[in-house]
Amino acid sequence: MLYNTKNPHGGDGALAGCRLDFSANVNPLGLPPAVAAAAREAIEAADRYPDPSCRALVEAIAEKENVPPSFILCGNGAAELIYAWCAAAGIRKAVELAPGFCEYSAALQLHGCKVERFVLSRERAFLPGKSLTAFLREQSPEAVVLCNPNNPTGREMPPELLEEIFSLCSETGIRLFLDECFLDLSDNRYTLASRLEAYPGLFLLRAFTKSYGMAGLRLGWCLSADRQLLSGIAVRTPPWNVSSVAQAAGLAALREKDFLERTRRLIQRERPRLREALMALGLWVCPSEANFLLFSGPAGLEVRLREHSGIAIRSCANFPGLGPGWYRVGVRKPEENQVLIAAIGEVL
Amino acid sequence: MLYNTKNPHGGDGALAGCRLDFSANVNPLGLPPAVAAAAREAIEAADRYPDPSCRALVEAIAEKENVPPSFILCGNGAAELIYAWCAAAGIRKAVELAPGFCEYSAALQLHGCKVERFVLSRERAFLPGKSLTAFLREQSPEAVVLCNPNNPTGREMPPELLEEIFSLCSETGIRLFLDECFLDLSDNRYTLASRLEAYPGLFLLRAFTKSYGMAGLRLGWCLSADRQLLSGIAVRTPPWNVSSVAQAAGLAALREKDFLERTRRLIQRERPRLREALMALGLWVCPSEANFLLFSGPAGLEVRLREHSGIAIRSCANFPGLGPGWYRVGVRKPEENQVLIAAIGEVL
Repeated sequence: MLYNTKNPHGGDGALAGCRLDFSANVNPLGLPPAVAAAAREAIEAADRYPDPSCRALVEAIAEKENVPPSFILCGNGAAELIYAWCAAAGIRKAVELAPGFCEYSAALQLHGCKVERFVLSRERAFLPGKSLTAFLREQSPEAVVLCNPNNPTGREMPPELLEEIFSLCSETGIRLFLDECFLDLSDNRYTLASRLEAYPGLFLLRAFTKSYGMAGLRLGWCLSADRQLLSGIAVRTPPWNVSSVAQAAGLAALREKDFLERTRRLIQRERPRLREALMALGLWVCPSEANFLLFSGPAGLEVRLREHSGIAIRSCANFPGLGPGWYRVGVRKPEENQVLIAAIGEVL
Repeated sequence: MLYNTKNPHGGDGALAGCRLDFSANVNPLGLPPAVAAAAREAIEAADRYPDPSCRALVEAIAEKENVPPSFILCGNGAAELIYAWCAAAGIRKAVELAPGFCEYSAALQLHGCKVERFVLSRERAFLPGKSLTAFLREQSPEAVVLCNPNNPTGREMPPELLEEIFSLCSETGIRLFLDECFLDLSDNRYTLASRLEAYPGLFLLRAFTKSYGMAGLRLGWCLSADRQLLSGIAVRTPPWNVSSVAQAAGLAALREKDFLERTRRLIQRERPRLREALMALGLWVCPSEANFLLFSGPAGLEVRLREHSGIAIRSCANFPGLGPGWYRVGVRKPEENQVLIAAIGEVL
């Protein structure tokens, strides 16, 4: 039996049998009630085609981000825009970080692009430093693909390093693909959005998925001043790619007042507590500025946790630069984190 | 201001201001209540990622269609699968019908494929005949793309012609892409599904969109015995491409007992009534075996209907083989069709 087989990720529906899912790194507060209500309401008119251009949503994002609507495209999740960007940009050589989200290289290689990896080290707690800029100069790729904060490490890029990379890219014409899908829930939230006009080679990826707990609805978007590239992406994505339910939910999410702030307070309270508890169990836990934690422990821990406690965590065995014995957990609500800590304590 | 510009289709969300939409050819009964309920329920768990492999849905389709699950892939609407098939199949020369759905050639040409058109004539009421087989022999393309019943003509392919084309394709290795998205609501519903195993070059496209009024939710699927092709499509579609709402709605739709039968009875009662009324107004109306009608009339009729009556119809001016003065209307409920007839009578 063959299914539509994809790279294994966290949050696979097959884990639905688990009572607690720490494998996905989405907002622990779930879908805001007003967003769920808007999505339910949209179902009433679901026999109509969605607006293929997502006009109302694009206008709302433009206002929120203070950029022209022409800089924005929406997609069926950020994942669709990764693939479409790779198809449209036609990059032959790119640099990415290892460990990093596996879909970048999957999409790049699908279009014949050579991918060079800058390997982050546990010794530096997976934080990139100035040697990344040197690596870029040395490799002179056509594009660099970064994620800030990075997945699965949870590390925010130091702002001065991000600025240095931006300068290098804009001066030498390297396209800078920057995945900011986790930025809303991270500590410093340093974005390059104000530089879009200055350098059309800058491409920012965003998603409602993580920030608003909308993983099942699929809604991502991107920002770029490169109109030709955006047109190229538009023709490479199918018509009506964003469902009317996702469009309605996205509009409602943008009207939320303090949901993200409340989530960040929760994360910033819970993350150190969870990290210290895991370290107290003898695990090495990477520092994090995001809503998830990377740690190392005995191989097979994810299987024992699932079988012993019905808890799903993300094995990072398939991330380049990691391997068996590496795991990622989303930071969740206090009582849920407590269950995770107790369960790991029991199976170790 | 640039939006994610796509080819203009019927059912554009911009027409939402219209009180009656005849421009899209979806089920006039709308979303079945149990399907809407399943979709609403899925929103409760929408903070979880969808099953990237659509396992439950694939199993249910396999049972219904009596094919192995390995023959099935689901997509973000049939439109996504058109693009992914073109990307995966790598066709350099294809034949399609004119008039026909514009996304086939858009997707084919995006991947560098040359498209030759077999032009259907009004004199033959847009019905293809034996000369189509001759055209295929003469052109010897790598693929032929057909839609049965055809959009926008509403004509079902004669079964003997379909069999003849199938034989030619399977004997000469021409890939046969057959869009059956409108088959559920058509008169004869002659499918090639039983031939999948006999010829792996056969690719059938299906959708919940039209049949179950799910245009806003986005759910299509395809059938083929060519595992390599399906794997190629799977890697070319982004992970989690089918939302959990669409998966839940699709599962519920497959449990519907007589919804399609009730819809067909409505269509078969209303279509001749609508067709005769339009002909009585002096319009040429193509015979149809589907849930929509193609007709010709004065240019600009769609603008006058929208402005005069708040009714949207589909201008077919941008279909190759048609032009200004060609229109498509979906067959809807009796009272709605009556409003359309009266409105056209007034503006003519």
